[in-house]
Amino acid sequence: MLIVQKFGGTSVGDLDRIGNVASRVSATKKEGNDVIVVVSAMSGETNKLVGYAEHFSSHPAAAEMDMLLSAGERVTASLLAIALQEMGHDATAMTGRKAGIVTDVNHTKARIERIDPEVMQNAVKSGKIIVVAGFQGVNEAGDVTTLGRGGSDLSAVAIAGALKADLCEIYTDVSGIYTTDPRIEPKAKKLDKISYDEMLELASLGAKVLQNRSVEMAKKLNVNLVTRTSFSNEEGTLITKEENIMEAPLVSGIALDRNQARISLMGVKDRPGIASDIFNRLATAEVNVDMIIQNKAHDGATNIDFTVPVGDLFDAKEIVDSFVQDGEIKADSYNEEICKVSVVGVGMRSHAGVAAKAFSTMAENNININMISTSEIKISMVIDEKYAELAVRGLHDAYELEK
Amino acid sequence: MLIVQKFGGTSVGDLDRIGNVASRVSATKKEGNDVIVVVSAMSGETNKLVGYAEHFSSHPAAAEMDMLLSAGERVTASLLAIALQEMGHDATAMTGRKAGIVTDVNHTKARIERIDPEVMQNAVKSGKIIVVAGFQGVNEAGDVTTLGRGGSDLSAVAIAGALKADLCEIYTDVSGIYTTDPRIEPKAKKLDKISYDEMLELASLGAKVLQNRSVEMAKKLNVNLVTRTSFSNEEGTLITKEENIMEAPLVSGIALDRNQARISLMGVKDRPGIASDIFNRLATAEVNVDMIIQNKAHDGATNIDFTVPVGDLFDAKEIVDSFVQDGEIKADSYNEEICKVSVVGVGMRSHAGVAAKAFSTMAENNININMISTSEIKISMVIDEKYAELAVRGLHDAYELEK
Repeated sequence: MLIVQKFGGTSVGDLDRIGNVASRVSATKKEGNDVIVVVSAMSGETNKLVGYAEHFSSHPAAAEMDMLLSAGERVTASLLAIALQEMGHDATAMTGRKAGIVTDVNHTKARIERIDPEVMQNAVKSGKIIVVAGFQGVNEAGDVTTLGRGGSDLSAVAIAGALKADLCEIYTDVSGIYTTDPRIEPKAKKLDKISYDEMLELASLGAKVLQNRSVEMAKKLNVNLVTRTSFSNEEGTLITKEENIMEAPLVSGIALDRNQARISLMGVKDRPGIASDIFNRLATAEVNVDMIIQNKAHDGATNIDFTVPVGDLFDAKEIVDSFVQDGEIKADSYNEEICKVSVVGVGMRSHAGVAAKAFSTMAENNININMISTSEIKISMVIDEKYAELAVRGLHDAYELEK
Repeated sequence: MLIVQKFGGTSVGDLDRIGNVASRVSATKKEGNDVIVVVSAMSGETNKLVGYAEHFSSHPAAAEMDMLLSAGERVTASLLAIALQEMGHDATAMTGRKAGIVTDVNHTKARIERIDPEVMQNAVKSGKIIVVAGFQGVNEAGDVTTLGRGGSDLSAVAIAGALKADLCEIYTDVSGIYTTDPRIEPKAKKLDKISYDEMLELASLGAKVLQNRSVEMAKKLNVNLVTRTSFSNEEGTLITKEENIMEAPLVSGIALDRNQARISLMGVKDRPGIASDIFNRLATAEVNVDMIIQNKAHDGATNIDFTVPVGDLFDAKEIVDSFVQDGEIKADSYNEEICKVSVVGVGMRSHAGVAAKAFSTMAENNININMISTSEIKISMVIDEKYAELAVRGLHDAYELEK
């Protein structure tokens, strides 16, 4: 098998941990696999460098930031290659450039445009273990670029896709994807397998193991992704095509997102295009609107409720308040004491009654549902934040996820 | 003027010092000059990275070491460019690759083969301040290489040569070249100008401001080199062509090298080629033999005395002892309690009596001269180490260098 293994900052956080990573890579190689390793900077390094830059400027130039920040991953990659050589392996460290990772021109948040795989292919063919500095590539002008948050995961997935690797293992300090947050529901179970689409829903709902960019790329490139921990030999969770999961359960997991705020607009003026005006203004300000509910009250006035991430609330308030001042909205109000509980599962596509069970579970626990939104594989409910844990445990029980 | 300014590790040792460097570069630019800056890694960084590598291997692979060590200079270059941008300058950071520095394939001690100057020339033309990561280049295979000790000085001199800069300023924590070590002779004076050849002699004799590789390259490329301190505005010392120095003094300086050991071979067998055998064996073991004296004693036996750096003494002993065991040499002895005092000056080419004054100065101070060697511009004398300071002060006085 050709296996891509990616180790994040905490997994390579100090020299001893880099040594542990070397042992793991060595074992994988000795089992007869070809291995390409992708590493992040040692934890804390990138923040240190960002702090250095901010000492000089609150808005340092992006090209210089990329040259600065790409240094951390180069250090880790070199050290891991040296450690592997010392264990008797033929290992070689590669920068993003050397590995053929070509990006667009957007410094600090570049997108991978293509991977020129020849150099890596030849190294694999000759039996080498390749250690690639993650998070970085090179643009057509020949300048170093970085891929933004979660960039090393992207490097790993893109390499796995380009070289048609059998597996792309993402090592973190978390052992896999759970049916729900074990800190809330101790009966939560680790999932063996989950589909890309379910993972995307869970990730956007607050499961922080993987970023959506990486999962989306894995789905697009058909990469079998495994998330597992570097601190034990525990098996992780395979994220793969739905077709690869023989018996998809009705529900895979319950996600909780506390990071939501609700904005209520009362008495929205009855003119064509006003909703579009409001939400266009919010979009321009990069406010991430999630759920939207519009209804007509008995007195004929239109009310609109929507949710935004707490971090976007300040910007959203400014915009909404301006509509109130212009007399287009009678009044607005805000509520940060809410949360979003979601039931995710590809099985619900072919099964009726999943949503009904969610609503009845809420009713049994005397939890009022403020907003509902559904997709093919997800039911989300906004409720008062104080009921968050109660709701998660109730749903986990109701769908028998501990089994 | 086009000025290349190189700042070493202590000059960029922390963020405040990088800020000071930015102010100095900014002032040079504002005086109407074009400026290319070459920087080392922050002091301690390279040693830290070497320590990391040695945690894993006593002989880490050279290619990986270069990828590892080149990270430090990239960090400093990025930060300095950001600091200059914040001061309103159009500044751009460049890696060795981007700056067009092409080297041979010898990782960790590469030689600069050429500089492709177009990218830097265009940046200078458009008014940019360029900040180049020193110490590094790229070989024809596209891999990062480093230039070995003093590599950032080499980067600066090579760039100054390729772009025909008017001046190449090397900033260190020392304010210039002195007539002798001021810690030994407080009356030592800083020299305004000195020729390449004198500097080469002084450097090889222990003046540690500049390495010979850099001075040799400056001589070859006809680069006007200035060594000065980054911690004050004090003028430094210009190292230039002999023709540029109007009135070359008889003697420019007195150098002291304590790092010498003397090896004495008594009763060397009288067969053709034996001296060549001994010194070939020493050369193969990379023992750096400096002065050699051979003489026939009254009894017809041949004695050979020579000096080596103290660090090479162990290897030299092994070789010499083997000749004793084979019966080709009757006996050998070693003396580390010696030093070499040298008088350096291009003026002595055209003036007689310089050597005589050195010898008489030694005699007046009752210092016995063990060995003598001379070149066109240098007289070196090996003496007992206990007389080192006395000899230096005596010679400094004799040639009236305090004037």
